[in-house]
Amino acid sequence: MFSLRTPLRRTILNSAGAIPKRHITVFGYTQAKALIFSEYGQPKDSRLHSHSISPAHGDEITVRFLAAPINPADINQIEGLYPSKPIFTTALGTPAPHAVPGNEGAVQVLSVGSSVTDFTPGDMAIMRHTAFGTWRTHATARSSNLLKIPKSPSVITPLQAATLSVNPCTAYRMLKDFTPLQPGGWFVQNAANSGVGRAALQFGRIWGLKSVNVVRHREGIEELKRELIELGGGGEGGAVVLTDQELADPEVQKGVVDRMGGKGAMLGLNSVGGKACIDLCKLLDTGGHLVTYGAMSKKPLTLGASLLIFKDLHFHGFWVSRWSDQHPAEKEAMLEEISRYISSGELKDVPMETTVWKRDTKEEELKAAIERSTQGFGGKKQIFVFEDE
Amino acid sequence: MFSLRTPLRRTILNSAGAIPKRHITVFGYTQAKALIFSEYGQPKDSRLHSHSISPAHGDEITVRFLAAPINPADINQIEGLYPSKPIFTTALGTPAPHAVPGNEGAVQVLSVGSSVTDFTPGDMAIMRHTAFGTWRTHATARSSNLLKIPKSPSVITPLQAATLSVNPCTAYRMLKDFTPLQPGGWFVQNAANSGVGRAALQFGRIWGLKSVNVVRHREGIEELKRELIELGGGGEGGAVVLTDQELADPEVQKGVVDRMGGKGAMLGLNSVGGKACIDLCKLLDTGGHLVTYGAMSKKPLTLGASLLIFKDLHFHGFWVSRWSDQHPAEKEAMLEEISRYISSGELKDVPMETTVWKRDTKEEELKAAIERSTQGFGGKKQIFVFEDE
Repeated sequence: MFSLRTPLRRTILNSAGAIPKRHITVFGYTQAKALIFSEYGQPKDSRLHSHSISPAHGDEITVRFLAAPINPADINQIEGLYPSKPIFTTALGTPAPHAVPGNEGAVQVLSVGSSVTDFTPGDMAIMRHTAFGTWRTHATARSSNLLKIPKSPSVITPLQAATLSVNPCTAYRMLKDFTPLQPGGWFVQNAANSGVGRAALQFGRIWGLKSVNVVRHREGIEELKRELIELGGGGEGGAVVLTDQELADPEVQKGVVDRMGGKGAMLGLNSVGGKACIDLCKLLDTGGHLVTYGAMSKKPLTLGASLLIFKDLHFHGFWVSRWSDQHPAEKEAMLEEISRYISSGELKDVPMETTVWKRDTKEEELKAAIERSTQGFGGKKQIFVFEDE
Repeated sequence: MFSLRTPLRRTILNSAGAIPKRHITVFGYTQAKALIFSEYGQPKDSRLHSHSISPAHGDEITVRFLAAPINPADINQIEGLYPSKPIFTTALGTPAPHAVPGNEGAVQVLSVGSSVTDFTPGDMAIMRHTAFGTWRTHATARSSNLLKIPKSPSVITPLQAATLSVNPCTAYRMLKDFTPLQPGGWFVQNAANSGVGRAALQFGRIWGLKSVNVVRHREGIEELKRELIELGGGGEGGAVVLTDQELADPEVQKGVVDRMGGKGAMLGLNSVGGKACIDLCKLLDTGGHLVTYGAMSKKPLTLGASLLIFKDLHFHGFWVSRWSDQHPAEKEAMLEEISRYISSGELKDVPMETTVWKRDTKEEELKAAIERSTQGFGGKKQIFVFEDE
């Protein structure tokens, strides 16, 4: 019900295969637009900028964007709070250096320089690293910036490709890399309705894991619970969903631990921090591991020493950008596997709200989408989809 | 200068070999005294209790205590704040159940029951597990309670034996078990003047590791710095000592990181918590591990998510009691190794202040020693030494 099954999506899907007509000058320059910002600050201070892209030569690849999501990390990056810094440059023809926001995205190759052998026009690709700048219609890239999405055996849409490398990868690695979970084993997580949370819930189902999933109390909570339980394989299969308010009750904590066999889980995934994190720790068994990948509450983890010394909990963090840079080969294999889950229907999209970015789309419409992305973490994922009419 | 080189110590050392005259009734009962408490509360509410111990029969072993330290965990145990609970029993002839405080100690075997084959009178032993109750002159034990201290190849004194199983073992395991340190590698620690801290500093020297050691600012700080640097093998050898106040200065932090080669250490040992712990984290390299084994500041660890996510720090705890229960064979091998370091003079004692516990020692004198142990953590370790005149 939440996934994007609209005519728009089919348009995008088709457009990844056929190269559309381009707005090109008589000298071969591609007309492009990008959101840009000149210094760290608020997303609302970014502006829409028009520029030209020279024809690809040598190792250059001209790409057009198909889809680019707005992730919390993108906002932090604009604010200057993200360790992966954007590149400020005058290459887009601005008098002072500017950067393009956005870290994740799917592109279609339009043309390649004479020395490019691994990409051909029509290929779909995603960003290999963070900080490329993806909130733009077109860009000049190099092979090292791009990771090709194979056309087979998996077929995934540009929207799926554009949201593949951050959230599902984060969930995948956190479930695999910190403590071995056997089929039938439990993990617990908060922010279960987030992109990472939904991916973790579904990987759990696919791999035979059971999960306790905490979400913030909200309107329509019962419907959300039903939806998440279904994503996790049903309540019988071992997907428990409860609200942060429910989990704050020690009786409920005890009931959940009983449901897990009386000992708690060996793995917890935390994207909230603050008290929500401490409540999550109460669901962990002695010797368990808590992995933090976000801080939606903007509150630190406050850990009594006894959680470390006597309960023997281990606290780690996970940052998919670092992992990706350090494990390029493993990343490709993982993306291949995740793509198979997507194309087989085993891994469902997160709820998304699209903003169409066309040649005449106004700056205000784009910035309104960014603004919506910062309105709490219960909403749908905001994503730009590009139409090159 | 701080270690106990007094006639008293030689008395104790000698007394571990020869069995002294005992106060025994005509029926073979040993006259004993113990500090006892009937409910969790303050150490000052404990009292000195006289009782008799029946002759050892079957698998029983009658021991007399040689030395028993007062550790912070003992105080927490009396307060009811320690997870390893003492045994409340009427076995000592009290009308209501009482427990004996104290977890660490060295004993001499006085007599054994007919089925005991692994201990003989005169053997020196230490407690195998916590919560035996060591602030007492005599006790009935079983083989499973005791770990024999071999008479060779190492010769260690009862005071050394009585303080072997908590602090040096904690330091040893934390340096070995969390991240591999190569010779020449650095670790950092706070509470460097504590029993664990001094042991870590010296193991570092023995194993070729370099260390940054943080102590609280105090009177006589320069003398303490010199002493700790010498324990660590000298400033040239790579032992840096600085105060918590000095470390709070970002310029000093940078200088220390530069001294470590510009990247920081991969291992930190924390027994303080609060801000001191965050300052220590600034000396850790990306991907480093911080192990918490105490909370002298009584303040929790407050960790911004970026320390976990972007700096990739890993936070663990260490509790020697759990480790010892889970690794009995490794523990014996480690004690053997540490005993060799002690008898060779490579590992020096912590500064100790002894309280002699004789037949006529008053309850007030014993409780004054306990009180001194709670006066901050810059002082000497308090330890009971038993004289059976």
